[in-house]
Amino acid sequence: MEGNRITGMSDPVILHWHQHAVSREEREQLHKHRGCVIWLTGLSGSGKSTLANVLDHKLFSMGCHSFVLDGDNIRHGLNASPEILAPVHGKEFAARFGLGFSPQDREENIRRIGAVAKLFCEAGVIAITAFISPYRRDRDLVRKSLRQGDFIEVFLDAPLEICEARDPKGLYKKARAGLIKGFTGIDDPYEPPDHPELRLDPVRFSPEELADTVIAYLKERAIIFPSR
Amino acid sequence: MEGNRITGMSDPVILHWHQHAVSREEREQLHKHRGCVIWLTGLSGSGKSTLANVLDHKLFSMGCHSFVLDGDNIRHGLNASPEILAPVHGKEFAARFGLGFSPQDREENIRRIGAVAKLFCEAGVIAITAFISPYRRDRDLVRKSLRQGDFIEVFLDAPLEICEARDPKGLYKKARAGLIKGFTGIDDPYEPPDHPELRLDPVRFSPEELADTVIAYLKERAIIFPSR
Repeated sequence: MEGNRITGMSDPVILHWHQHAVSREEREQLHKHRGCVIWLTGLSGSGKSTLANVLDHKLFSMGCHSFVLDGDNIRHGLNASPEILAPVHGKEFAARFGLGFSPQDREENIRRIGAVAKLFCEAGVIAITAFISPYRRDRDLVRKSLRQGDFIEVFLDAPLEICEARDPKGLYKKARAGLIKGFTGIDDPYEPPDHPELRLDPVRFSPEELADTVIAYLKERAIIFPSR
Repeated sequence: MEGNRITGMSDPVILHWHQHAVSREEREQLHKHRGCVIWLTGLSGSGKSTLANVLDHKLFSMGCHSFVLDGDNIRHGLNASPEILAPVHGKEFAARFGLGFSPQDREENIRRIGAVAKLFCEAGVIAITAFISPYRRDRDLVRKSLRQGDFIEVFLDAPLEICEARDPKGLYKKARAGLIKGFTGIDDPYEPPDHPELRLDPVRFSPEELADTVIAYLKERAIIFPSR
């Protein structure tokens, strides 16, 4: 640690530079698990949010530090729409930085979520993201931004027919009626991962069973330490 | 918890909806401290990063969960410049979403940092931000986005002459030479907080002493629980 002496003061003070925040490894030793990003991807209605929350609860009950990033906490804040931003920041600002559903906006949506998930990962947290994230390239960019092994892509592989039959938010119905444009699976593609770390079947298995599969993976890879 | 029975499958599965992530309060009971945002503000060279890191280390050694958001981990990721974004995302994308130093870009810079700090706060983490954040309005918008008591504005009140004499990154020199435009304190204003939760004197007191003052405040307000 270097010292930088401020002179000319009545009370000279030694100021220390180049101090770093607590390292990721130090936090991980305390938590007894590594930080990582569990990136759930799949069609609307494939059960991403449900799995994210069940997993979060299970990890919490084990004393692990996890956090869910999903539409609820992202779309009203970090990635707010122009309509949300305009009253506070003005229309010009909102038009530039607010996110809608154009290809560019979707790309930026995933880019920002990836950057935040990375921060949580660096903080030693198991970040769980629950977004359709339909484009392979966007997901792969997040993967590349992280350290090898930190990105755990979990594909919820449910057939469109099942997701559409479930339609928990009534979005497929609206998309079929032409009220939503560019809806994934209807008039916009979903690009499944080629080599996800985990491919899960949310039709045959319950969210509880799927969460256990993810946790088994985390233990197998020593993301959750054996000492825990 | 509601159940939604998917029929027509060989293996009917009960899917549970409306499950929420672990609540902030549950996490806080486990951590024995609340989440909050410690928002450091002050001129370049006033010691924000140093204080942030000393505070982070002290909180960590107490077993508290804290994390520093600063230029190092924000400017290369979430709030990357057009120059960083262009090679990966293309020039048009970079021009729209990349952040420079125009008034609008600075506003968005602080808005995104505030949104991320809020997420950490919801995760039960003591988020420490270390940015000049010169405009009162931008800081007040972050304050308003948080629950009452969650925003702790800490003003590092050092005279410009001292900060400029220290000039740890050589930025004042560059600004005086006209190589940096719109530099806070030189040709762009710094608007001090009217009612910061803490006003600290980084000339008379060491970063260690200032960190202790912040921690005393956190205990006094029961952000760090008395039971800890």
